[in-house]
Amino acid sequence: MAREPRQERSRTTRRRLMEAAVDCLAELGWTGTTVGVVAERAGVSRGAAQHHFPTREDLVVATVEFLAEEQIAELRERAGTLPPGRRRAEPVARLLLNLYTGTKFRAALHLWVAASTDDALRAVLGPLEAKVGREAHRVAVDLLDADESRPGVRETVQATLDLARGLGLADLLSDDSRRRQRLVRQWARMLEPIVGERSGTE
Amino acid sequence: MAREPRQERSRTTRRRLMEAAVDCLAELGWTGTTVGVVAERAGVSRGAAQHHFPTREDLVVATVEFLAEEQIAELRERAGTLPPGRRRAEPVARLLLNLYTGTKFRAALHLWVAASTDDALRAVLGPLEAKVGREAHRVAVDLLDADESRPGVRETVQATLDLARGLGLADLLSDDSRRRQRLVRQWARMLEPIVGERSGTE
Repeated sequence: MAREPRQERSRTTRRRLMEAAVDCLAELGWTGTTVGVVAERAGVSRGAAQHHFPTREDLVVATVEFLAEEQIAELRERAGTLPPGRRRAEPVARLLLNLYTGTKFRAALHLWVAASTDDALRAVLGPLEAKVGREAHRVAVDLLDADESRPGVRETVQATLDLARGLGLADLLSDDSRRRQRLVRQWARMLEPIVGERSGTE
Repeated sequence: MAREPRQERSRTTRRRLMEAAVDCLAELGWTGTTVGVVAERAGVSRGAAQHHFPTREDLVVATVEFLAEEQIAELRERAGTLPPGRRRAEPVARLLLNLYTGTKFRAALHLWVAASTDDALRAVLGPLEAKVGREAHRVAVDLLDADESRPGVRETVQATLDLARGLGLADLLSDDSRRRQRLVRQWARMLEPIVGERSGTE
């Protein structure tokens, strides 16, 4: 077996630590997520973990960025497969309203709630969440192919993402997917007037 | 000063404990919210607290019910002051979309997130949250004066409450009230077709 080059090995370690951090956060919450616990779960030595992430704040900031980048990349990939014009309303509503369910959202939620009572965590997480939120907004506009210069369009896109986060909460204690799918169909009708506007297709 | 009758004294103690539990949850989270800590904050003896609430699960179940009842009562009170027909869309959108901001939502959020990784807590909180959610839905329908037998109306009411919870999340790390007020105006236009339907006014 060929030896993995040093830089690549370092990247792999980093990624394994961030993936373990997601699982730790989702299962144990912020209190239980220390660099030591994450290192053990990732099968990485404590020293190597601390080389990458000196504090657990460093680790979670990198993890939130990593999750956001993965999610945005996944959405951008899907963008190419969407039908033009109004027919994209339902698939886009489905993509966006299912965005904040699952382990990744649960991990982020633990962080947000912890940050609401932890000044040090909020200081690093607040600006990052604002940036991630703006990116999610931009990708939603692109998926919808919406024209934000028209009145109300910006707010409708925002409401879509806020609704998606609310649906993430509703999915936390029990499987809410059936109800969510009915909302997706209703929401698609709501989005129809604003989708496919930029490319001018109908 | 007249002595407080025993029953009333007991009710006052119970209420003080539940109010202290809300503050404790919002500040310290589920981990920091023990019956002992709450008793101390409420200025109630540990013995008296444990007489009312033998476990912290008992305390938080009572607290969630108490919060929900207070909120529903407050909304019902406002219902009488709303204008008829479509003009109620904006005041109702404002009431509902501001519902999940502040200390009470923060307290509940700590519980939900804790319950997502704590089977014992989820066992008591899950059914309770479902019941509270149904009550919130009913009061929203009444405030909107909406006709749920019409297609899509039920989903629009649900989306309003899910959106409200998403906006509660968005308000967690920074003051989101200005953006939320723009969404209220946009949402009011969305609600216009379904408000004031039952009473048949325009």
